[in-house]
Amino acid sequence: MATKGEITREKILEGATRIFNRQGFAATTVNDLLAATGTTKGNLYFHFPGKEEVGLEVLHRAKGGFIHFLDASLQGVSPGACLDNFFRQALEKHRESGFVGGCLWGNTALETSDTAPEFVGVASEVFTEWIGKLRETVAAAQAAGQVRRDLPAACLAELVVATVEGAIMQSRMKKEEGPLARTLETLRSLLELKVRDGRGLNPQ
Amino acid sequence: MATKGEITREKILEGATRIFNRQGFAATTVNDLLAATGTTKGNLYFHFPGKEEVGLEVLHRAKGGFIHFLDASLQGVSPGACLDNFFRQALEKHRESGFVGGCLWGNTALETSDTAPEFVGVASEVFTEWIGKLRETVAAAQAAGQVRRDLPAACLAELVVATVEGAIMQSRMKKEEGPLARTLETLRSLLELKVRDGRGLNPQ
Repeated sequence: MATKGEITREKILEGATRIFNRQGFAATTVNDLLAATGTTKGNLYFHFPGKEEVGLEVLHRAKGGFIHFLDASLQGVSPGACLDNFFRQALEKHRESGFVGGCLWGNTALETSDTAPEFVGVASEVFTEWIGKLRETVAAAQAAGQVRRDLPAACLAELVVATVEGAIMQSRMKKEEGPLARTLETLRSLLELKVRDGRGLNPQ
Repeated sequence: MATKGEITREKILEGATRIFNRQGFAATTVNDLLAATGTTKGNLYFHFPGKEEVGLEVLHRAKGGFIHFLDASLQGVSPGACLDNFFRQALEKHRESGFVGGCLWGNTALETSDTAPEFVGVASEVFTEWIGKLRETVAAAQAAGQVRRDLPAACLAELVVATVEGAIMQSRMKKEEGPLARTLETLRSLLELKVRDGRGLNPQ
């Protein structure tokens, strides 16, 4: 059973994740953090030396969660179906959030690339893992004749991640799914993703 | 001839552009702004009511500069050469900055989408113009047989902007041109961009 201290720590990290994602790390003051997490300054500083450490812990935990999301979404009866499922899950994930918050990793990359090496280091690890997992799936889909074979899987995987990040940015900005949904459809066409066993972006 | 006041105002806006782009708007304090622009608090507040107004003015001016960049880079002896030139100029622009700062519009979109409607409004206008200009060029290139015709120009243009934004993010994060350069090459292949009269990404 979780102790009272563990519950408080958890509450701080959950609230911090929401507010950092919505308004960014730098724009979040310690007072914002207290309001968002419903804790006292005493409690916050009992568990963390400061805002930086809360931010880093948020990222480390989110990394685990995101890798789990990738593994769970890159599932299917064939490599092509895995890709198909990944695209659908990515859209669904952001639909659920109402296109608020966007992608924590993109946000972290843009906010901290020039200023906070430890923060961007975690984001960089996440992107490397993401591209690596997609590369394996794309290569398998190429071998299965479900994705075009004339371009290296590594190049296609790198482009997919860039495109998905940019499209999430556009949907978050407009607060509508159009940009992300349309761009994922275009991307599927460009990849020549052929899946009889996939469900597409908008399954009934 | 510019007055002393105009010169000071210019100096403030130039310094503000650099520091907002590098560390973000929210993370920049008024003191950072003074240090970056080499002005006194008295001078800053003589010209602007506050940091918000400096930020908005920076965006409005940058919008003009970016539209000019688009018009200047979407030039060539054929529509395909225009696209070819745009890709090359986009890479060159970020090479010159050493992949520091990234794209002001992507940064603004991610930093202010959920918090500052006036800021994200300017970014949204910029993206709409950018996608519109690319759509026209892509449509012309399709008509000229220089870009694949099986997908609508509007969809391809929207994907190009998302992909370029995501790839700039990756290069900025890694501080190397690889992600952007490779992704632009992959994108050219996926678009089936055929230009005898283009110069490619790395002309001699």
